[in-house]
Amino acid sequence: MAAEIVNPASDGNTGADEGTGTAPDGTFDPAFALHRGGKMAIQATVPVRDRDDLSLAYTPGVAKVCSAIAEQPELVHDYTWKSQVVAVVTDGTAVLGLGDIGPEASLPVMEGKAILFKQFGGVDAVPIALGTTDTDEIVETVVRLAPSFGGVNLEDISAPRCFEIERRLQEALDIPVFHDDQHGTAVVTLAALRNAAKLTDRSLGQLRAVISGAGAAGVAIAKILIEAGIGDVAVCDRKGVVSVDREDLTDVKRELAGFTNKAKLTGSLEQALDGADVFIGVSGGTVAEEAVAKMAKNSLIFAMANPTPEIHPDVAHKYAAVVATGRSDFPNQINNVLAFPGIFAGAMQVRASRITEGMKLAAAEALAAVVADELSADRVIPSPFDERVAPAVTAAVAAAARAEGVARR
Amino acid sequence: MAAEIVNPASDGNTGADEGTGTAPDGTFDPAFALHRGGKMAIQATVPVRDRDDLSLAYTPGVAKVCSAIAEQPELVHDYTWKSQVVAVVTDGTAVLGLGDIGPEASLPVMEGKAILFKQFGGVDAVPIALGTTDTDEIVETVVRLAPSFGGVNLEDISAPRCFEIERRLQEALDIPVFHDDQHGTAVVTLAALRNAAKLTDRSLGQLRAVISGAGAAGVAIAKILIEAGIGDVAVCDRKGVVSVDREDLTDVKRELAGFTNKAKLTGSLEQALDGADVFIGVSGGTVAEEAVAKMAKNSLIFAMANPTPEIHPDVAHKYAAVVATGRSDFPNQINNVLAFPGIFAGAMQVRASRITEGMKLAAAEALAAVVADELSADRVIPSPFDERVAPAVTAAVAAAARAEGVARR
Repeated sequence: MAAEIVNPASDGNTGADEGTGTAPDGTFDPAFALHRGGKMAIQATVPVRDRDDLSLAYTPGVAKVCSAIAEQPELVHDYTWKSQVVAVVTDGTAVLGLGDIGPEASLPVMEGKAILFKQFGGVDAVPIALGTTDTDEIVETVVRLAPSFGGVNLEDISAPRCFEIERRLQEALDIPVFHDDQHGTAVVTLAALRNAAKLTDRSLGQLRAVISGAGAAGVAIAKILIEAGIGDVAVCDRKGVVSVDREDLTDVKRELAGFTNKAKLTGSLEQALDGADVFIGVSGGTVAEEAVAKMAKNSLIFAMANPTPEIHPDVAHKYAAVVATGRSDFPNQINNVLAFPGIFAGAMQVRASRITEGMKLAAAEALAAVVADELSADRVIPSPFDERVAPAVTAAVAAAARAEGVARR
Repeated sequence: MAAEIVNPASDGNTGADEGTGTAPDGTFDPAFALHRGGKMAIQATVPVRDRDDLSLAYTPGVAKVCSAIAEQPELVHDYTWKSQVVAVVTDGTAVLGLGDIGPEASLPVMEGKAILFKQFGGVDAVPIALGTTDTDEIVETVVRLAPSFGGVNLEDISAPRCFEIERRLQEALDIPVFHDDQHGTAVVTLAALRNAAKLTDRSLGQLRAVISGAGAAGVAIAKILIEAGIGDVAVCDRKGVVSVDREDLTDVKRELAGFTNKAKLTGSLEQALDGADVFIGVSGGTVAEEAVAKMAKNSLIFAMANPTPEIHPDVAHKYAAVVATGRSDFPNQINNVLAFPGIFAGAMQVRASRITEGMKLAAAEALAAVVADELSADRVIPSPFDERVAPAVTAAVAAAARAEGVARR
């Protein structure tokens, strides 16, 4: 392993204003102060202090490494950072709760994601905010970038384009392509739901779930719950249950209607909640307390909208056995950082050609297992800062990749 | 300024084989050992150690920073790493002396370039080796990437495509776009030539130069020498002097013939050298000693081909007053690392919209001035490890950007 050299020539803020650390209006704000000059930097991991160093890390020594890769292309994984670096790709169209704010304005989120990759998974990541929202252009651009990266994390790309972009990139590339807003959320939700079911002495097969939100997260959660053996799941958009009889559905929702909602529910979200065991909110909006009150006994309520949960935890606790949110100031935070760093770390460790459904299910099981012996209603999912999480997810994903035949080492 | 945190969760080699450090054939080789796992990593420059950190660096704190940039786009320079990060873009077609080895095999060079940016200029840089060699596709891809970067360093793209790609990107983008194989080489060559002329009591206007090589470097050197006031310069390709009477010229060479070679030389490189004051080799190939012997008194010989100079320094020294090469094991190494880190650092410090001819000339003058009081035949250019170089070039380029009206702060 190469030594880590903290670079003496850089303060990590070249070219940025190193001024007052204040917000644009001149007031002090800790978030603006922290963001000034950005949140990340490049670091050399080999020394470049003298002529001898330079002759190995650059010319002439580098030439033989290049030649070796030209002859044996797979050596790029051994002798460059490709296998440890992920492109965090967005077009800035669905950023946090802010919506379509464009690529530049999305960069603070992408940098944040990049440093979470590093902090929690030991994975290097580079923010790539694209100046296009055209599906074809995004796909072809990422394909052209792919030689430099070991994985692609799609981020904050609006539905339904995100589905097509991910599918086409997965078909075109032989490295993991993963839309975290879909699958990261789905993995963590499944992990928490597994533990919540266990805590209330039920199997997933005994549960009927209702998802509020048919965007990226809702669709992915529905899929993973079905793969994991949920009894039934209905997905609702603003017009109610996504069901086969509706004539206003997009292609994605039509497909969704085909493989969800075995009970053939129609009508509103509130109607669907009548007797349901599980509520999963990834929509924003609010749910009336009357509807919550009609859910089945021992209900499980995951109200994950930020900053305002669809059902306030104080209300949810009146009826539910387990309550989870997306917020860090309540117990059971459904936080993607529990999944994506370990999923990429595991996939890239074995040079997986893609991230399969089995790898995602394995990630969810490993994540659930971390707190399996500590389960309580306030602890169905680990804290993001639980240091057992990333190693457990990484190992499970790597093993699943091997088992599924997509590992290349 | 944000503190630099060396990330405890990473050893900078995630996913890479941390094995023996040997070459692919199993033998020990220090260059392969150094390259194992790559040469660079991402580093968080803000802490992400607990819930409070996360709430500032990521959600919910990041949202207000994103919103501020959405409202005032120029704030992206203050609150992200955009203004300190350069994309090092190649298509792998003209890598070192190896030629068209493809994007993956070029990555060790791009990583090397990236760590030189950091070490010598304090500039962050990301290797982007593209999976296309099509001019239109390269241009449109880099345009789409540009929101994430503060500058674009084009690298090892073959001529003549490199000229068109650079020109079109400069027209399309409002950040510095700089093909280092052209302009970095040209700046360092001009700096060394200025000092060599001074040492031999001549002005540039008194010198007639012959350049061997009409590719990226040769064309750029010819241009900068003319801008700097060289007496005359003729450029030679494999068929001899690039002159207006030739009918086999590409568009680039035809244009070159139009503004070089005032003396209207024709014929071979050797013929052109008869009586010439300066030889600049950026071609490979060799020059016969008889031709060298016919150069003017006090000739200046810059034989920069690697690893085999066009004229061996032992031969050159028999006739020349000053000899420079591209090699680190002879005096007067013409090494681009003397220029590009400071040029980008200076341009990005003032958020220059482009790198002008005036900024390049200023870089060359500043570089020459570093050793102005120490001049000798073996010291017409500083060592790459001379710590005065990058600050001097940075300051000169920033000042020139302001003077030329392309600075935005």
